[in-house]
Amino acid sequence: MEYHFSDRVSNLKPSAIREIFKYASVPGMVSLSAGNPSPEAFPAKEIAEISARILAENPISVLQYSVTEGYAPLREHMMTYMRENHRTGSDNDDILITTGAQQIMDLCTKALVNEREKIICEAPSFIGSLNTFRSYNARLVGVTVEHDGMNMEELEEKLRANPDVRLIYTIPNFQNPSGVTMSLEKRRKLYALAKKYGVLILEDNPYGDLRYSGESLPNIKSFDTDGIVIYAGSFSKVVSPGMRVAYTIAPKPVFQKLVVCKQGNDVHTNIWSQVVCDEFVTKYDFNAHLQRLRDIYAQKATFCMELLDQYCVPKITYHRIDGGLFIWCDLPENADMPAFCREAVQHKVCVVPGNAFLTDENAVSHSFRINFSTPTDEQLEQGIRTLGELIQAY
Amino acid sequence: MEYHFSDRVSNLKPSAIREIFKYASVPGMVSLSAGNPSPEAFPAKEIAEISARILAENPISVLQYSVTEGYAPLREHMMTYMRENHRTGSDNDDILITTGAQQIMDLCTKALVNEREKIICEAPSFIGSLNTFRSYNARLVGVTVEHDGMNMEELEEKLRANPDVRLIYTIPNFQNPSGVTMSLEKRRKLYALAKKYGVLILEDNPYGDLRYSGESLPNIKSFDTDGIVIYAGSFSKVVSPGMRVAYTIAPKPVFQKLVVCKQGNDVHTNIWSQVVCDEFVTKYDFNAHLQRLRDIYAQKATFCMELLDQYCVPKITYHRIDGGLFIWCDLPENADMPAFCREAVQHKVCVVPGNAFLTDENAVSHSFRINFSTPTDEQLEQGIRTLGELIQAY
Repeated sequence: MEYHFSDRVSNLKPSAIREIFKYASVPGMVSLSAGNPSPEAFPAKEIAEISARILAENPISVLQYSVTEGYAPLREHMMTYMRENHRTGSDNDDILITTGAQQIMDLCTKALVNEREKIICEAPSFIGSLNTFRSYNARLVGVTVEHDGMNMEELEEKLRANPDVRLIYTIPNFQNPSGVTMSLEKRRKLYALAKKYGVLILEDNPYGDLRYSGESLPNIKSFDTDGIVIYAGSFSKVVSPGMRVAYTIAPKPVFQKLVVCKQGNDVHTNIWSQVVCDEFVTKYDFNAHLQRLRDIYAQKATFCMELLDQYCVPKITYHRIDGGLFIWCDLPENADMPAFCREAVQHKVCVVPGNAFLTDENAVSHSFRINFSTPTDEQLEQGIRTLGELIQAY
Repeated sequence: MEYHFSDRVSNLKPSAIREIFKYASVPGMVSLSAGNPSPEAFPAKEIAEISARILAENPISVLQYSVTEGYAPLREHMMTYMRENHRTGSDNDDILITTGAQQIMDLCTKALVNEREKIICEAPSFIGSLNTFRSYNARLVGVTVEHDGMNMEELEEKLRANPDVRLIYTIPNFQNPSGVTMSLEKRRKLYALAKKYGVLILEDNPYGDLRYSGESLPNIKSFDTDGIVIYAGSFSKVVSPGMRVAYTIAPKPVFQKLVVCKQGNDVHTNIWSQVVCDEFVTKYDFNAHLQRLRDIYAQKATFCMELLDQYCVPKITYHRIDGGLFIWCDLPENADMPAFCREAVQHKVCVVPGNAFLTDENAVSHSFRINFSTPTDEQLEQGIRTLGELIQAY
């Protein structure tokens, strides 16, 4: 049988980093290439308590079919919580529970972007989202990420040059992979440009609650008096990614289309996990839990940066972070980054090559991404010392 | 803001039956319009036991990120189980765990069907799948369902007339909505035609385990020596739909594309529920559980058919069933079916109008669908008696 695949999927090239990821599970390998929450970060005891209670008291409510929009108490709670705590969402918006935030990217592309229409992305950006956009045959237009977020002149230039841009995709807080947080000024400018050019913003904020130093900046969605921002929030980094529960706050007309698309996608999100998330955020001290996570990650991030300072700087430079799970490292301009990453693998350390995060994977990059939330302190020390030894040899 | 939606979604018309479904939750309404498993059918005690054990022993394993392909022990078990019990799947196939079987329809359309290419569907067929196909701007071609499955002459005619057909979608056992089971002869013929015309078959089998009388027929996938059948199985009707766990057994080249699409869709299926399903089917007596479900549904189906015989026949005729959750009823040729369904709602009974299940929702239908798994016996009696009274007045 000769299989006939759709144009969308035929155009999907095997990822350049697949090779690297394959090595992450090799015994003895120190993987700095993942993005998993730290094993200490899960509220496992509370989840077990909640789940046991629900399954004893009202099992059918979490085992039966449910509604596409999501568990009503969780939707209501998150809508109120996001309004009161983050000025995010208004009467013109509605909230949809999704199967992880990845599904938000999927539904938005499906509902808003025709094949060959364009999505503006930060360069670099989260590879998972880029691949979702690609899987609908959308065209990606990259805008350079600076220390304080997208270059706004370049953004306007690209908006002007591409009237078929349908979405601007941004991760404003502790961006994956760069670790960069967009400045308040740029957030306002981004909003103004999107409004001027009639383009929707897709604001992806999985790490916003994981700020361990400095002051929080307002979500772009908090400026949204025009109904042009779709906000993506997630429980993956603050409760559990294995449960696949996230939510989007979107202008009502967009929300309605996302609901129709989700119905055809998976009918509804696992209702058992939705109810567990709801009880965890409403009946337990969620703020204390977030503070515990921040403490865990602050300690790990600080340790990771100390190791980089000790073993790698100045040959490897990096952007200091105030939150999130990733650190972006730059090799000297003349370094062969892919060769460096391959050599690291030979010395039992996995990092993700920077070009994996570009809208054009074949573009040149001198950077790589480190994750510090998954490895143990011992693994971090071993991995970063090895990277330091390798770079000294260059 | 004037929103610009994609062609896929702009072409999605609001469903003709949305109006009817809206009434199903009105207090006092007897809903014969759902498709939910009976509340008695859930192995709630076992699920609670398994879940408590996992969360006590190894919580991180079910709360952390997992792999796109699905939980390895569940995949291995189902692959072996389906080969040994149903001759379904071979060394040329692989198995992917999905977020409900709806996601299989989504991934297959995405990977295999370009916009405006065609999918052959049974007429009538499951509205959820039809809407998924529509959401990718695929064109639907209906083939009449007879008492023993699709009309094979019509199928060949449509295959010949439409060289851009990419999939033949069929529910061979206790089809939703018609209740029809495809004969062995037609299964073989369907396979031969698909092979002759180089088209893949998407075999959707959510109800196969719910046969309460007669002999099981082989899955179409069991004939698949040519790698042309994608099999969709689900735990929704035999464990829990709220958990959203299903699986597809597909030829390896197709499997690989489905995995890439799923990665962009929701990364992976809720791993907690995958592990619970695995333990339930491997560590408990799954066959005894299935027998219990068959007993529950046999009793309800028999009761429902007795009520139809007593109150509605001969003005309403129906196809007797040997399994599944649905009974398909026909009004006299001259009856105004939509008016009948609206009148039923006014008398506090909801059924689904037959045209909702057609590839062209505006086509004329004299049929409606009854579900007997969700209502209580009292509700069934009240609902069907009311339908009988209404039809007497016609």
